[in-house]
Amino acid sequence: MRDRGELVDVAMGRQEPDVVIKDVNLVNVLSREIHPADILIAGDRIAAVLPAGEGGEGRESTIDGREKFAAPGFIDPHVHIESSMLTVREYSRMVIPRGTTMIAADPHEMGNVLGIPGMRALFDEAASSPLRTHFRVPGRIPAMPEWIETSNGSVSVDETGELFNWPEAVCLAGDINPRLILEKDDEQFQKFDLAERLGRMISGQSPGLRGRELAAFLAAGPEDSHVARTVEEIIENTRLGMASVLALRPGRVLDSSHLAELARIVKEQGLDTRQFQLCTDDIHAHDLLHEGHIDHRLRTAIEAGFGVVEAYQFATINVAQGLRIAHDYGSISPGRVADILLLSDLESVSVETTIIGGKVIYADSQYEGPTEQAVYPDWTKSTIKYQKPLKAEDFHSHPINNTDMAKVLVVGHAKGKGKVAREEELSVQDGVVQPDGDRRINALAMVERHGKNGGIGVGFSDTAGLTHGALACSVNHDAHNIAIFGANHEDMAIAANRMQEIGGGYVLVRDGKVAAELALPVAGLMSENKAEDVAQAMQSIREVYRAELGGHADDMALIYMNFLALPNIPAFGFTDKGLIASDKMQPVDSVIG
Amino acid sequence: MRDRGELVDVAMGRQEPDVVIKDVNLVNVLSREIHPADILIAGDRIAAVLPAGEGGEGRESTIDGREKFAAPGFIDPHVHIESSMLTVREYSRMVIPRGTTMIAADPHEMGNVLGIPGMRALFDEAASSPLRTHFRVPGRIPAMPEWIETSNGSVSVDETGELFNWPEAVCLAGDINPRLILEKDDEQFQKFDLAERLGRMISGQSPGLRGRELAAFLAAGPEDSHVARTVEEIIENTRLGMASVLALRPGRVLDSSHLAELARIVKEQGLDTRQFQLCTDDIHAHDLLHEGHIDHRLRTAIEAGFGVVEAYQFATINVAQGLRIAHDYGSISPGRVADILLLSDLESVSVETTIIGGKVIYADSQYEGPTEQAVYPDWTKSTIKYQKPLKAEDFHSHPINNTDMAKVLVVGHAKGKGKVAREEELSVQDGVVQPDGDRRINALAMVERHGKNGGIGVGFSDTAGLTHGALACSVNHDAHNIAIFGANHEDMAIAANRMQEIGGGYVLVRDGKVAAELALPVAGLMSENKAEDVAQAMQSIREVYRAELGGHADDMALIYMNFLALPNIPAFGFTDKGLIASDKMQPVDSVIG
Repeated sequence: MRDRGELVDVAMGRQEPDVVIKDVNLVNVLSREIHPADILIAGDRIAAVLPAGEGGEGRESTIDGREKFAAPGFIDPHVHIESSMLTVREYSRMVIPRGTTMIAADPHEMGNVLGIPGMRALFDEAASSPLRTHFRVPGRIPAMPEWIETSNGSVSVDETGELFNWPEAVCLAGDINPRLILEKDDEQFQKFDLAERLGRMISGQSPGLRGRELAAFLAAGPEDSHVARTVEEIIENTRLGMASVLALRPGRVLDSSHLAELARIVKEQGLDTRQFQLCTDDIHAHDLLHEGHIDHRLRTAIEAGFGVVEAYQFATINVAQGLRIAHDYGSISPGRVADILLLSDLESVSVETTIIGGKVIYADSQYEGPTEQAVYPDWTKSTIKYQKPLKAEDFHSHPINNTDMAKVLVVGHAKGKGKVAREEELSVQDGVVQPDGDRRINALAMVERHGKNGGIGVGFSDTAGLTHGALACSVNHDAHNIAIFGANHEDMAIAANRMQEIGGGYVLVRDGKVAAELALPVAGLMSENKAEDVAQAMQSIREVYRAELGGHADDMALIYMNFLALPNIPAFGFTDKGLIASDKMQPVDSVIG
Repeated sequence: MRDRGELVDVAMGRQEPDVVIKDVNLVNVLSREIHPADILIAGDRIAAVLPAGEGGEGRESTIDGREKFAAPGFIDPHVHIESSMLTVREYSRMVIPRGTTMIAADPHEMGNVLGIPGMRALFDEAASSPLRTHFRVPGRIPAMPEWIETSNGSVSVDETGELFNWPEAVCLAGDINPRLILEKDDEQFQKFDLAERLGRMISGQSPGLRGRELAAFLAAGPEDSHVARTVEEIIENTRLGMASVLALRPGRVLDSSHLAELARIVKEQGLDTRQFQLCTDDIHAHDLLHEGHIDHRLRTAIEAGFGVVEAYQFATINVAQGLRIAHDYGSISPGRVADILLLSDLESVSVETTIIGGKVIYADSQYEGPTEQAVYPDWTKSTIKYQKPLKAEDFHSHPINNTDMAKVLVVGHAKGKGKVAREEELSVQDGVVQPDGDRRINALAMVERHGKNGGIGVGFSDTAGLTHGALACSVNHDAHNIAIFGANHEDMAIAANRMQEIGGGYVLVRDGKVAAELALPVAGLMSENKAEDVAQAMQSIREVYRAELGGHADDMALIYMNFLALPNIPAFGFTDKGLIASDKMQPVDSVIG
């Protein structure tokens, strides 16, 4: 709760401000202007914005704003921190210098692996970081019913209600299968009722939904989606009152060419863009380091042709209004938190200084937040619990007799289409269908890792596209069982067993030996190491993946594979129960003849 | 709570919609476009908006929308129903055909006269009307401390908290003295904390505040104001994050010429108008009938040069976002309430049909809501409680000896300035300062009418400008004591005593006889009669006022007088304690020499 009395006294000139930013060019996302101003800060809030020259001096400091721009700190409305593989502390150290001052994070990865205590551990860790880390209360943990996928954590409707009491709670997260909504899932509707009673925004995701399906989805309650794939979809969403949270990045289905088309239409037709927001969703340490965060999305939007201040609105006030917190966040105006960026150039989003809650956290290329290693409790580690050591035979598909060839479904990705499954023929030896490294068709296994039933789904994939060896990975949304791709079954077993030893992460094996690995001991999802080290380890993984295992040149494959499990994302999932047909929501056999 | 299942089934085509509006030109306030569409309604909500021709037929009815426009129902964010002198039922009958489907009403008049039970009586009455009547929880009852004005009702901080439990509650109302905020009034800040904890918008009013004072006001919490007087003020408000609720009407300080200037600046500079809203605030039955409601404000905005759909945003989505209820109200989109207008012409705001909650309430010039008289409980009447019958001597200023002339402060109004007080000389007979009908300077008395202390404030005014007789009125914001203007003291006594007999309202007396009257028996504020009859009675009052009492040609005087008491509105108030200096917030003598 703000200290109203102090703010009034400082604004009225009865008391000195702590900090004054003097004579700065204010990026006013409320009026959509840039105008000179003095900004007076008292405690963690803005007490006044006055005409340039009228603000006086700050008690602690006066910052010369001449030839600089002041913009509100960027707010990312849709983040999964675990996807960065970093602690919140390291994530903060990466994104604050980029201008992000607040994120709304859905920790459903931690929630699926370690339940509510796991999520609490993440927010406890976040509390020691200057990044404002708000809580998107997960919409569904586990994501899938037990006949589709084995998970560990679970959150009931009542528990969801309790999660809204966490001080970090901001909205109900919507990373759930939209079919649940179209099929009127009772548990989901109860959670919507709960959020509505509490006055919280209901987030959604409506991949490819149009017309009647989109209307039905929205009528049930969700207010935003971050998975639009086409300009037509974004315009239909806008017309129907769904905020478009744009997760722009190279390689994503929605990229900068779509955005240029959208900017052109907006300009020509005078469309209202108040429902447009930017987000990063899932972003690896390596990309955080080299590409950026919301600043990168914002540059992309400006380059696409949106008005500069309009684009800054996408990253600030529009997000705050979507989350119903614009009275506290998202603009530089009296009473709002003092989350302020100083930039040398708006179009290139050149952040020089980041102020959060009135404190300078980044300036002169120096990060002032905590940099010592954050340490998670022991119980969050050693979460890879097989029921027995794994052997090559565990990854065999069921025996086929009296034939040399089998027809199988191979799961993978196609550019512009997302996930696809296609039919292929593979050879059979001693009744076992064989992977074919020459054609980059690998055996795929998803091993239950929560110590529940030891189940293993087996099938075939060209997502990793290995010509040699095997690759195991513990990041597999949303249950985070262990995926193993292999050009041979023996290396798969070595990779799988090493995975348990390092507590999760990535393991690459060739010719019976570990060729590269990255340990992610916290829930098998996150490292406690420095972002640079994690990024470097991931870079080594990428290099070994391509050079020694013969993986795809496009290393997006290493991200695609994280989402192979999800039956939410059409047209299939691949879990510890095997291949799941999204339309039927049932396991189907990978070997079809 | 919406029936999510039914909405989904109707949107998906599994179940027939109740009503379909077919092939209509949708005024899309979300995308700021007009496009053809079919609107599918299930129960009281919109289930789907589909491309024209795809919506099928309605189970109950299909409405042909060809060559018509469909716009969201208008929402008035700032209303005092009591000022219309009508029951909510009659108010509804007036405004629904004009396109208003929802109002947010602050019943602080009822609250000042009859406390919380009085406000509840108003909302109980409202429940039988199709107009959605939301509750702006009053920010301060009584408005003034007891040494400034005697009121009856009072609402504590704790009771304010309880009022937020009323199902109609939508925000904290802000019709309070802004000085309370600048002086850090503890009770007011407690109410702000309360609203903030509940996630409710805090409304404000910041008449003429600029620079540091405006910043201080906003920093304390309020988010909107409806009393801007200049274009510069509106632009400063917009930049600082204060929603501008524009109470445009002829005679108001802010009129259509200001608006044209504003529209020009908005267009030239590309300003964001999402913070602009329209309201009616206080509006008499007569003006409701002849001039209109939000439709009139909207026409004014369009004539001033705002884009047509942009102007419709001011009356719909912008209001809903300001009140943080845009997920339920303010646009024609799936899941929102089916409050829909059909119009034959957008620029003239020609409403043909008003649908509220999926039901046609107005069509073919017929109003389908209840029209029988609403009756208030007996305890809401007989609220004029003098301690004894009033005599001419009660209206004398204190005796002055040994002089024929006295210097006095005369309170009144000046165009473009609002309330003003000026010095004048008046003759003294037998020690009593005499009103001067020839110069239209009247004796003024404010009589305590709640039966508390029988106090009478006396002074002088040219607001009514009577040449003959006397005029008494029980509508005097916010305590609603009885104001009596007189060219002679004897007619004042007759008017005052007749006022008690009719239970409140307006009484005009000349030469010892009642010349016209309008009874407002409910709290001395409202009539239970038909709007047309109240308007006609008020028209008679206006005519007798001008023709027999020699009142001002500009009958805005009859509205100005309602606000003479208020010390909130600079530079003075006139209460049962006499003349109140706004800067000192203390009574001062009207006779100064």
